Amino acid sequence: MAEITHPTIVDGWFREISHMWPGQAMTLKVNQILHHEKSKYQDVLIFESSDYGMVLVLDNVIQCTERDEFSYQEMITHLAMFAHPNPQRVLVIGGGDGGVLREIVKHDCVEEATLVDIDEAVIRLSKKFLPGMSVGFQHPKVKVHVGDGFEYLKQHTDEYDVIITDSSDPDGPAESLFQASYFELLNNSLKEGGMITTQGENPWLHMDWILPLRKACKSIFPVAEYAWTSIPTYPSGQMGFMVCGKDPKLDVKKPSRAWSRDEEDKQFKYYSKEVHEAAFILPKFAEKVLR
Amino acid sequence: MAEITHPTIVDGWFREISHMWPGQAMTLKVNQILHHEKSKYQDVLIFESSDYGMVLVLDNVIQCTERDEFSYQEMITHLAMFAHPNPQRVLVIGGGDGGVLREIVKHDCVEEATLVDIDEAVIRLSKKFLPGMSVGFQHPKVKVHVGDGFEYLKQHTDEYDVIITDSSDPDGPAESLFQASYFELLNNSLKEGGMITTQGENPWLHMDWILPLRKACKSIFPVAEYAWTSIPTYPSGQMGFMVCGKDPKLDVKKPSRAWSRDEEDKQFKYYSKEVHEAAFILPKFAEKVLR
Repeated sequence: MAEITHPTIVDGWFREISHMWPGQAMTLKVNQILHHEKSKYQDVLIFESSDYGMVLVLDNVIQCTERDEFSYQEMITHLAMFAHPNPQRVLVIGGGDGGVLREIVKHDCVEEATLVDIDEAVIRLSKKFLPGMSVGFQHPKVKVHVGDGFEYLKQHTDEYDVIITDSSDPDGPAESLFQASYFELLNNSLKEGGMITTQGENPWLHMDWILPLRKACKSIFPVAEYAWTSIPTYPSGQMGFMVCGKDPKLDVKKPSRAWSRDEEDKQFKYYSKEVHEAAFILPKFAEKVLR
Repeated sequence: MAEITHPTIVDGWFREISHMWPGQAMTLKVNQILHHEKSKYQDVLIFESSDYGMVLVLDNVIQCTERDEFSYQEMITHLAMFAHPNPQRVLVIGGGDGGVLREIVKHDCVEEATLVDIDEAVIRLSKKFLPGMSVGFQHPKVKVHVGDGFEYLKQHTDEYDVIITDSSDPDGPAESLFQASYFELLNNSLKEGGMITTQGENPWLHMDWILPLRKACKSIFPVAEYAWTSIPTYPSGQMGFMVCGKDPKLDVKKPSRAWSRDEEDKQFKYYSKEVHEAAFILPKFAEKVLR
C-alpha cells in the first residue's frame, strides 16, 4: 500500500499555515498519517503525532489532539452547562468528534443530548481513530443526526436548555454558524432560561471579528459574555467562547451549580468552579474593546 | 555584504525546535535577519518577522516579539509590584531587553530600579533593535550592572522590596537561577515584607519541573504561589511565574494597591487588578498537583 501523503506535512512535520493567522504556524511532529479523505464538505486528515497523540485536521486546521482536547471540550461544554441551573435537553451543533457529548453526559440532570453534525466523515473517523472523544457517542442518552445545524434549528423551537456550537473556524462549512441569523435561530430553539456556548476564536488574533460577534449576540440575548481558555495546539495557544443566556437574571459568569472538589477532581482535567469565573477575565487589551 | 543566515531559519520561516518541548515548534515568518552573534554566553539572533515585529532569540528560543511581549513583561513585573504595598527599591535579574524596567518605573513609589544581566550583548542589541522595550533603560531611576545575578545577590542583602528574575529557560546561562540556593539568595536580598517573581515555565509542558520548584520556594518563603499568563509566541502559548513573599500576612494573589480603571487603561495592555487575581487560578490538572 502506498504511504499516505498530505501537503501540510513536509519532512515529518505538520504545519498549520492559514491566512486566518498570517506569519505564524504551529507545527507538530508526525509519526504516521493514518487517514486522508476529501469528504463532501472538507479535507479530513488524521495523523499520529510524536507527542500529542492522535490529531484530527479539517481543511488544514487542527481540530483536536488527544493531549490537550480536554481543555476545549470541558470549557465549551461546562461554561453553559454549569451556568444553567438544570439543563435537561442539550443540543450540540458540530462536535462530530464526540468530545462535547462525553462532557455533557457527566451531568446526571441531562435527559437527552442530541448532536447534529453536517459531516458524517468526522463522526465515522472519530469513532475509528479518536476513542477517547467518540466514547461520547456510546452513552444511552445521546442521539445523533447527520445534517445542517442551521436547518435543524429552524425545525426545533423552544426545545433545548443548552445548545453548544462546536464548529470549525468561520472560513469553510461552518461559516453560517457565526452569523447573526444563526444566533437568532439558537435563541428560538432555546427554552426559557436557556443558554448557549459557541466557539469564539481568540482575542490575540481576532478582536476585529469578536467585537461584531459580541454586538450581534448582545442584540439578541440579554446576557452575552466572552470567555476563553488556554489550549496549546490552537492558534496562539488560546480559544475563546461566546456564552449567552435568555434570562437576564442568570449570570453566565458564575456557575449556578457546583460539584464538590472530589467530584470535580474525578470528572475534570481543566474545568473547576474557579476556572469558570476566571475564564471571563480578559486581558486589558480585549476587555477595553468588549466592555 | 553577505546575507545573514541562521540554522533555525529555513525557507523564510524561523522554527523553535527544542528538547524542552519535543514534537512541537512555533514558527514565525521572517522578513529579514538583522543580527546574529555568539556572545560570551549564548547565541543571539534578531530578526524582523512578517507579523510579530522584531523578534529576539537566545540559544534558538524566542525571548520576546514586539507584538506580544507586553503580556509577559507586564505580568512578571506587576504581580509582585502590586502585591507589595510600597515597593521603593526594585531589582531585576536578567531582563536585558529592558521591558521589565519599562514596567517597574510606571510605579511612582519606586526610587531605584537596578538591572543585573550577565550578557552585555542582550542589552546592547535591545537598545539598537527593540526600542519599545529598551526605553526602560532611559529612565533616571534606572541603574544597570553587567554581571552575574547570583554573585550580585550575595553582595546585596536586606536591600530590595521587589526582585524580578526575568531569565531565559533553565537550560543554558540561566540554569543557576532556578535552584533552591538561588531562592535563598533572593530571600536574603529582600527587605522585610519583600516579594519576588520569577519566570516559571508552563503547566502544559513542565509540571514535573514546576512542582519541585514550588516545593523549594515554599521551604524558603512563607508565601509561594504560582500564576500564569497567555502569550502566543512562548511554547504552548503560556508562561508561568513563581510569586513569593516574606510576609505571611501579605497574600500575593491579591493586589495590595490598585489604580483607577482610567489609569490602568492608560498604562497597561494586559494587566488589571482582575487579571492579577485570575492569573493564580490554574486549570484543574495543574491545581491538583500544586494544591
